[in-house]
Amino acid sequence: MFLKDQWYAVAWDRDIGGKPVGHTICGEKIVFYRKRDRSLVALEDCCPHRLFPLSQGSVHDDRLVCGYHGLTFAEGGQCVHMPSQDTINPNAHIRAYPVVERYRFIWVWIGDAALADPARIPALPWCADPAWAFDGGTYHTACDYRLVIDNLMDLTHETYVHATSIGQKELTEAPFDAKLVGDRAVVSRWTLNVEPPPFWVHNWKSKELVDRWQICEYSVPSVITIDVGVARAGTGAPQGDRSQGISATVINLITPETETSCLYHWGFARNFETDDQGLTARIREAQGGVFMEDIDVFVHQQQNILARPDRKMMSFNIDAGGVLARRLLDRALQNSASKAA
Amino acid sequence: MFLKDQWYAVAWDRDIGGKPVGHTICGEKIVFYRKRDRSLVALEDCCPHRLFPLSQGSVHDDRLVCGYHGLTFAEGGQCVHMPSQDTINPNAHIRAYPVVERYRFIWVWIGDAALADPARIPALPWCADPAWAFDGGTYHTACDYRLVIDNLMDLTHETYVHATSIGQKELTEAPFDAKLVGDRAVVSRWTLNVEPPPFWVHNWKSKELVDRWQICEYSVPSVITIDVGVARAGTGAPQGDRSQGISATVINLITPETETSCLYHWGFARNFETDDQGLTARIREAQGGVFMEDIDVFVHQQQNILARPDRKMMSFNIDAGGVLARRLLDRALQNSASKAA
Amino acid sequence: MFLKDQWYAVAWDRDIGGKPVGHTICGEKIVFYRKRDRSLVALEDCCPHRLFPLSQGSVHDDRLVCGYHGLTFAEGGQCVHMPSQDTINPNAHIRAYPVVERYRFIWVWIGDAALADPARIPALPWCADPAWAFDGGTYHTACDYRLVIDNLMDLTHETYVHATSIGQKELTEAPFDAKLVGDRAVVSRWTLNVEPPPFWVHNWKSKELVDRWQICEYSVPSVITIDVGVARAGTGAPQGDRSQGISATVINLITPETETSCLYHWGFARNFETDDQGLTARIREAQGGVFMEDIDVFVHQQQNILARPDRKMMSFNIDAGGVLARRLLDRALQNSASKAA
Repeated sequence: MFLKDQWYAVAWDRDIGGKPVGHTICGEKIVFYRKRDRSLVALEDCCPHRLFPLSQGSVHDDRLVCGYHGLTFAEGGQCVHMPSQDTINPNAHIRAYPVVERYRFIWVWIGDAALADPARIPALPWCADPAWAFDGGTYHTACDYRLVIDNLMDLTHETYVHATSIGQKELTEAPFDAKLVGDRAVVSRWTLNVEPPPFWVHNWKSKELVDRWQICEYSVPSVITIDVGVARAGTGAPQGDRSQGISATVINLITPETETSCLYHWGFARNFETDDQGLTARIREAQGGVFMEDIDVFVHQQQNILARPDRKMMSFNIDAGGVLARRLLDRALQNSASKAA
Repeated sequence: MFLKDQWYAVAWDRDIGGKPVGHTICGEKIVFYRKRDRSLVALEDCCPHRLFPLSQGSVHDDRLVCGYHGLTFAEGGQCVHMPSQDTINPNAHIRAYPVVERYRFIWVWIGDAALADPARIPALPWCADPAWAFDGGTYHTACDYRLVIDNLMDLTHETYVHATSIGQKELTEAPFDAKLVGDRAVVSRWTLNVEPPPFWVHNWKSKELVDRWQICEYSVPSVITIDVGVARAGTGAPQGDRSQGISATVINLITPETETSCLYHWGFARNFETDDQGLTARIREAQGGVFMEDIDVFVHQQQNILARPDRKMMSFNIDAGGVLARRLLDRALQNSASKAA
Repeated sequence: MFLKDQWYAVAWDRDIGGKPVGHTICGEKIVFYRKRDRSLVALEDCCPHRLFPLSQGSVHDDRLVCGYHGLTFAEGGQCVHMPSQDTINPNAHIRAYPVVERYRFIWVWIGDAALADPARIPALPWCADPAWAFDGGTYHTACDYRLVIDNLMDLTHETYVHATSIGQKELTEAPFDAKLVGDRAVVSRWTLNVEPPPFWVHNWKSKELVDRWQICEYSVPSVITIDVGVARAGTGAPQGDRSQGISATVINLITPETETSCLYHWGFARNFETDDQGLTARIREAQGGVFMEDIDVFVHQQQNILARPDRKMMSFNIDAGGVLARRLLDRALQNSASKAA
């Protein structure tokens, strides 16, 4: 069951252009393309005539042309051309989806179009602010999208899954705090007065002792930002003064395709050396490698879950953040169900 | 649901010889081979002993030998040899199917064998008449066979699917006529006083204006012939005088394997330059390329249909021929069901 | 339905070491590894936390560490470490399976662990006796394991399946005897006063006429040994005096994974020229080639069976041994079911 009346990130802005592209979002097959003015169109990916996928067709004069018999649809979903026919059958109408471009991503609204307000897209200011450099990628992942949420809300997995890259034994030993802050689930982990790990040594350009933080914030339905950074130890970072350090934000947008597959968009935004495009490329490559280790976990985990339908997952201390996130999601699903009833 | 008590084209004559070959026809697994006198045998493709497919076996003395333990079957389906056993269990009998070779194809009768009359095979005189050159191929296609019928009864798809080969914008604009003629559905499209397309320029050896025709005829269960040609404009071709032109017949035999797969046999028969084997080969290659574009459509269409079980196709003006063909097929299915009841 | 309260051969001794290896045995996913003292551990292949397969993890200090968050399990299945948690949730306990190494194989007990007595493993003395040379392999096979039992209890298939290697027309003509001997089904085939086949000519180093034997013994659930050999004709081999000949034992251990897949462990034990490692390697390669021909049969047979759920196999004279074996197996299944009820 997917949460309706939500914006979901479909793709990076660069991945949808003038040619139609098909995606499955929350079980709905949708075709996306840009018009010549670069505004976006999202339509049901199914010609009502012979049910041919419109994503196999083409765009002509900003309109979507079916690749089978040339039925043509305007951005509102109405058919505006049928071959060998002057009067167009008014039933030849397909569903149009609200779609916007924001924060470097294309977002589609799944649910009641009348409720689609772009202001409800969770704020991701780092992604579109020139003061930050931002890049990343997308992994098509064969698992329930909620497994990705669990993963990101409990970073102790880094010690085991990313043992050879970013994992550190200390991570699993540091205390952490999980709580609801408004409509968000927040897990904060501060490691005080420690040596900075290699990534931060390299970018902070110092080996002095630091206070290090990782603050994960989850918003319904599936946006997780992770505020990460280091500051000179004892200079007040935990109290809010980060002037003696540097930080970055890890962006995670997880969009369900089906019950057992999702699109996982990931990226890294930094506000230091933002003009160094080589650094941007190296970070993207490194992040892609680390996150691929998670994909491997998700696929194995999903297969095991499917093989044991009677088995429930258990939650321990480390899952406090994930439990809060799932509670927010389940509550939203219940609200949605009771509205529908 | 498949239409029983029908002949279905299994393979080209050249594709079945002395070695057993297995095919699924209307959901029934059948093994075919030729005897030394080149007559045909069609038997259930399942040894009654251990259910091993007999198409994995061999033919010895015109009899089919199971590849597992050597049980041997005569063409009527009776077991004539069991290892280590003098008395043969009379229950070790498999079903035999009526099978004939006609019009360059092997045809099998699905249904009540007592009703199998080869005279009921739709006449395809062009395929076996020395006055015509005929060749083609077979595509194993992952779709409901009726999608192929729809496709062939509405040639406006050529403009979009075959845009780079045989499609012409004019095709979708030419008027056409769809009607029942006896037990056939016939769609006729005449384009009068036009420039001949490249294929006909090349073969008719003239660029004079022509009257061009495409006449599709559907017969139950799934035989479609398309009479195509051009004649000097205004010389009476629409009225039946083709003496000033040339023509050909496109042959399409679509045999259901399962609910979502079929064997699509296609070919091209011409009565001009019939001795030019190079031309035969070139036409076959070109036709194979064009028809492969349709296969790609069918597979995408079928996947979309399976993903939307609640969605019905819509029919517009261009589908008039397909609607008539499906009506004949549905009527035959109903007759068959009421006979069975 | 699988027979519980049985030992099943999981792997050759050489195929499980210090790294965790996952197998599905009778539908149960189990992870195996050796401790530093080479003793074996078998645990449920599923971390109770996030259901990640433990076979994707690692072994540390003889304990199994989950590859996702580091939960650690002792050989009894109890969790002995959780990250960020001092008190371990006692429910975080996974099932441990009795596991032993015997006769060159790793055996796991499926069923009630309290009943697991290694003495119940069928005796395979040839596999671990220095007087015999023994080697073989394992084929992962996409069929119901009982199809392999049928195959081995009726060697007439050799004539057809192994026509180019070990099959002989005489085999299907020789009389054979099938009977129950205690808790075993035994099929004996003696071919008297015949020329020895190439394999025995080569190893017996003579072309004199021989009495040849093949004696298949089946034990519940799925162990089949085949005693094969030749002796100088008329020297009393049928009566028990094999002093004028040589013999070998073919070992077959067939372990169900799922209803339609199994692990087929095969090998060949001989008591002649046991120090000739080159001969051991050549026999293994030859046996692997011959048995692969059977795998091909099993896969086709299984597909045909699945396609015809209403079709029952028939049994003829040659199946007498297989019928007895299946009777023993079915009786054991019924006993098991009535105990459970």
